[in-house]
Amino acid sequence: MKPFLGDNFLLENEVAEALYHDYAAKMPIIDYHCHLSPKDIAENRNFNNITDAWLEGDHYKWRAMRTMGINESYITGEKDAEAKFKKWAEVVPYTLRNPLYHWTHLELQRYFGINELLGPKSARAIFNSSSAQLQSEALSTRGILTKMNVKVVCTTDDPADSLEYHQQIADDQFDTQILPTFRPDKSYAFQDLDAYHAYLTKLGKTAGKEIKTLDALMEVLYERIEFFHLMGGRLADHGIEYIPATQKGALSPEKIFEKAFHKTELEKSEIDHLSNFILLQLSKKYHEKGWTQQFHLGALRNNNKRMFRNLGPDTGFDSIGDFPQAQSLSQYLNTLDNSDQLAKTIIYNLNPADNEVIATMIGNFNDGSIKGKVQFGSGWWFLDQKDGMEKQMNALSNMSMLSCFVGMLTDSRSFLSFPRHEYFRRVLCNLIGKDVVTGELPNDNSLWGKIIQDICYQNAKDYFKFKL
Amino acid sequence: MKPFLGDNFLLENEVAEALYHDYAAKMPIIDYHCHLSPKDIAENRNFNNITDAWLEGDHYKWRAMRTMGINESYITGEKDAEAKFKKWAEVVPYTLRNPLYHWTHLELQRYFGINELLGPKSARAIFNSSSAQLQSEALSTRGILTKMNVKVVCTTDDPADSLEYHQQIADDQFDTQILPTFRPDKSYAFQDLDAYHAYLTKLGKTAGKEIKTLDALMEVLYERIEFFHLMGGRLADHGIEYIPATQKGALSPEKIFEKAFHKTELEKSEIDHLSNFILLQLSKKYHEKGWTQQFHLGALRNNNKRMFRNLGPDTGFDSIGDFPQAQSLSQYLNTLDNSDQLAKTIIYNLNPADNEVIATMIGNFNDGSIKGKVQFGSGWWFLDQKDGMEKQMNALSNMSMLSCFVGMLTDSRSFLSFPRHEYFRRVLCNLIGKDVVTGELPNDNSLWGKIIQDICYQNAKDYFKFKL
Amino acid sequence: MKPFLGDNFLLENEVAEALYHDYAAKMPIIDYHCHLSPKDIAENRNFNNITDAWLEGDHYKWRAMRTMGINESYITGEKDAEAKFKKWAEVVPYTLRNPLYHWTHLELQRYFGINELLGPKSARAIFNSSSAQLQSEALSTRGILTKMNVKVVCTTDDPADSLEYHQQIADDQFDTQILPTFRPDKSYAFQDLDAYHAYLTKLGKTAGKEIKTLDALMEVLYERIEFFHLMGGRLADHGIEYIPATQKGALSPEKIFEKAFHKTELEKSEIDHLSNFILLQLSKKYHEKGWTQQFHLGALRNNNKRMFRNLGPDTGFDSIGDFPQAQSLSQYLNTLDNSDQLAKTIIYNLNPADNEVIATMIGNFNDGSIKGKVQFGSGWWFLDQKDGMEKQMNALSNMSMLSCFVGMLTDSRSFLSFPRHEYFRRVLCNLIGKDVVTGELPNDNSLWGKIIQDICYQNAKDYFKFKL
Repeated sequence: MKPFLGDNFLLENEVAEALYHDYAAKMPIIDYHCHLSPKDIAENRNFNNITDAWLEGDHYKWRAMRTMGINESYITGEKDAEAKFKKWAEVVPYTLRNPLYHWTHLELQRYFGINELLGPKSARAIFNSSSAQLQSEALSTRGILTKMNVKVVCTTDDPADSLEYHQQIADDQFDTQILPTFRPDKSYAFQDLDAYHAYLTKLGKTAGKEIKTLDALMEVLYERIEFFHLMGGRLADHGIEYIPATQKGALSPEKIFEKAFHKTELEKSEIDHLSNFILLQLSKKYHEKGWTQQFHLGALRNNNKRMFRNLGPDTGFDSIGDFPQAQSLSQYLNTLDNSDQLAKTIIYNLNPADNEVIATMIGNFNDGSIKGKVQFGSGWWFLDQKDGMEKQMNALSNMSMLSCFVGMLTDSRSFLSFPRHEYFRRVLCNLIGKDVVTGELPNDNSLWGKIIQDICYQNAKDYFKFKL
Repeated sequence: MKPFLGDNFLLENEVAEALYHDYAAKMPIIDYHCHLSPKDIAENRNFNNITDAWLEGDHYKWRAMRTMGINESYITGEKDAEAKFKKWAEVVPYTLRNPLYHWTHLELQRYFGINELLGPKSARAIFNSSSAQLQSEALSTRGILTKMNVKVVCTTDDPADSLEYHQQIADDQFDTQILPTFRPDKSYAFQDLDAYHAYLTKLGKTAGKEIKTLDALMEVLYERIEFFHLMGGRLADHGIEYIPATQKGALSPEKIFEKAFHKTELEKSEIDHLSNFILLQLSKKYHEKGWTQQFHLGALRNNNKRMFRNLGPDTGFDSIGDFPQAQSLSQYLNTLDNSDQLAKTIIYNLNPADNEVIATMIGNFNDGSIKGKVQFGSGWWFLDQKDGMEKQMNALSNMSMLSCFVGMLTDSRSFLSFPRHEYFRRVLCNLIGKDVVTGELPNDNSLWGKIIQDICYQNAKDYFKFKL
Repeated sequence: MKPFLGDNFLLENEVAEALYHDYAAKMPIIDYHCHLSPKDIAENRNFNNITDAWLEGDHYKWRAMRTMGINESYITGEKDAEAKFKKWAEVVPYTLRNPLYHWTHLELQRYFGINELLGPKSARAIFNSSSAQLQSEALSTRGILTKMNVKVVCTTDDPADSLEYHQQIADDQFDTQILPTFRPDKSYAFQDLDAYHAYLTKLGKTAGKEIKTLDALMEVLYERIEFFHLMGGRLADHGIEYIPATQKGALSPEKIFEKAFHKTELEKSEIDHLSNFILLQLSKKYHEKGWTQQFHLGALRNNNKRMFRNLGPDTGFDSIGDFPQAQSLSQYLNTLDNSDQLAKTIIYNLNPADNEVIATMIGNFNDGSIKGKVQFGSGWWFLDQKDGMEKQMNALSNMSMLSCFVGMLTDSRSFLSFPRHEYFRRVLCNLIGKDVVTGELPNDNSLWGKIIQDICYQNAKDYFKFKL
């Protein structure tokens, strides 16, 4: 019987162990997509206690607690930090087989040296010990980034964001590069036209311009892209249900925008037509700048309106959609490729039933110009767990080239999530180690070790062209 | 090499063995969804022979025989019981890797103490021995329920059913509770308006009312719900391709019903609009009564019209559909949740490609009020086998909370199907046992054993609030 | 640690080994669906070198090279054979975990006795050795078919094809039967009406008739079916995104054809309606002739228009679609079954998310008349790898009857692909061997060995009724 979370956690044989410890473990981290707060880094925040660090914004944990029947007052409500933590501790044993169970104990070990299991009996001691440690410089936000050997962090930022905190961090010459990612989802969020109007005002304010036309919007977005580029940004990101397609016989994008601007509700087909236009223009700009564009496809968001009214978005009420993806995605990429304006692209799907669609779609546009130009992104959100990672890497292996993969990102809001890279690396090494031991791959650790290091670090470094 | 179907069948290591034998095996059975005949229980039927018990209504076996090229006369036709059984025995070895192979031999062992493999050579002896045993009191329908430690059986019943057999069983004070489940599928089956009209007449007769309007229909359905409740019913069930959505610009439900009542064929959008209305009203009533509603989504039924004409429905000509599920399901649950009228809900999907959609959908409406309020149902029909169960439990584990699961039901027409609970429990214990041995869970049998007992029995008991 | 690609490659225990070596390995090959060139066989071609044999038409390898960032000149371009081979050799280690890695080394072993791994260092020696061996009679196209124990090859042929090479081979009394397969996809390719018109002219020329009406087209197609039948053809094949359905309120097929003939662009619904009609008539003819019809469903083809302009179709720019399949497929099969005109049918799906839809669909039309009348086809194209095969066989096992399966085909353009049958057989024996060792099947090699031989050879022989 293997010990829980031991040195060889997730490594099922000696080859996997050697590949992990000799090759993967030592590689630095490029966290090219996450939701860390630049403000927290700029201010080098120390969290008051483990509850703030762990439960402040973690909708994974919130969902688990709600499913166990825990009252909202202990989740996002008014209870104090220790009371909330104790409730969470009660839930932890019941999260068996969920990634939360592994993440929780891995994070206690890696950040706090705590090897005890979290549960009702250990809750108080763990609360005290971890909260105390969080006051140290080593566990400030910057301390953490240094401790975890993180070379680059790409945050996720709205075009309307001033990037003042990125500037402040850059001025400090902090060793970890903290780079902005351009996420313009609100610029084509035509479902709620009041909110859209307010957003145009906000974006215009940042840019010092009034936005009353589609042309003006695109011009401001281009300017913001240039500014993000100046600040070191090299990625864009889009979170959408599916790639919207052009619609036969639709009004012109300019006319549809005009309707939206005057708060005339749009047909779904109009939203698609206009969004398609905006996305295409942005994609061309990304290509011009040498950026990488990311598409996160297939989430069904804000399903619970009652809780949305109480808590807002991103609070644990999103799930996996079942939208058709292949045709409009193909058309979109082809439109860009046709004029040789297809930027480097990473496609993440939320529904694992689409794994094979994406794993084969990328090959249609990998044209020999750049190694792994179009990428199948790592297991995202609900798929960011062992089974999800294995399925993504198996589909990628069987239907494309695992060796060209740019690998893992945390996608996390928490500074305590960096062990997810370790988790990914163990899963990767184990897949290859098992193939070696079963005779499905020859026994050549240096060859596979090199490819593993590529996937863990070198491919991302080369692909994004970060200066490291 | 492990012996076939030995004590440790499906248990791959000693932890799994201990979890099964020490914790799971001893738990009673709550079979909260099945298709057993209340009449057979009321009359405490003894089957004439193993053919009647096994092949009378089992479309799984029928499909296997047809695929092997067996003539229908040996399946649903005129051949005698022994001839049919011999044909089935010939087919059995060719069912390798199908659940039929395991079920067949498990049932021979558990009910009849027969350890021999069924095949052409053993057919006659097994026919005789099992048929003889079926004459004993221990293997009458009630004998079987007692022998298998079944505490509750929830049958599946039409609102038009008088529940006379349930009454008769209750009057007998039989130890196993035999409770009705409200399955009103025919009340919104607008595809065949002649049949629909006939059904309204039948339902009206049971209720002692004429049904000529939608209002009258709903009133009768509410009355029947009250009657089912009186008879101990605490569940409803709906078998539908997908949750129908309201349709913009449609006629009112009342008007569409009027069209249907006058046998004017409905548009598909009208059927969806009206069905949505009826379902919503029923769901609100279930919530009022504290019931649990079940949705069985995604079957494509009666595909073979030629065989339908000969044999009717539920004879082995149904298969897995690929309907979009996420959006209308989300809207439906949200509509109910919005006014806090969402009953406890179990969602079963037939297409395993939807596993992750459902496994994450439930989290949108688990609001902390009840442990596991919205459930992802156990592997259903074609998915009721080891691989299907494992995928359901893995998706549930990775994306929600396995520990809150209400577990297994047979969904069977056969009194010989109770070993499916044993089968499920072995699969469950094996999943957890493997995680312990590989170091993915800590070694703590009493902790996991408790959660296993919850999933096997206690969660269902608490969730449905059966008096036990 | 098992040696890479040793005698017991892919066989995880002794039962699997025994099943493979004692039962599966000795069976001859019926390659009932492939894309081998009849001309190459008629002329008993010797390839000039390994590049011609391996890279001339293999879009799997081309995609891998492009993904690695290799310039097209080394792929389909002007570089010489040795330069291309060296580039391929550089890529090979990076194809780890892709079937290309196994196929490459298996083919080097089985055809050339080369046990060395292919890579930059070994490239030159392997190029020279394999290219020299390809000049021998034993490795001519006919030599290969004899060496690989291939009894039947079914090529894939357009109705407009004269089948002159099939005639020439038949005249030579070559031991391997080389039979044509009727693939009339171009006869309903209404997307490009210029190309369609040109095709009608070509087909008419072969048939010696002018084709100006739908009637004339069907008549010619029927004649060609008769001719293919005379030449030994017993299969048809259709590569389509999904089965097109009849459309309510559409013009008659004849009228739509007339529009197409006059190059008036068709609505999508018109294309579906007309294609449905043509397919149905063909299917009835196949039934009349006792043929087997194949449907390859779900590919999304020619996604990259830029590369299509340069290189044409089938050059590595196709991927997996996500079309709904179940309803129109069910209706189509039912329409034919209803008048008892459903031919033997094999359904291949490209999207593995549809595995369970297909695995259960077949059971709706298996009516006891023929063993395995409607088949779930073996893992196709991107799914022709270990994981894809296992998923197809597991779905088939769990939801239908593995024992009735007609098994493997190469679907390949390459004479070096026959080890894919060996690969399939090893995967099959391993699945069953594992079940025996874990106690999920009883230990009876002769019983399972017989069923394995059925799947490898006998089922196909009986099903297609080849004279062997």
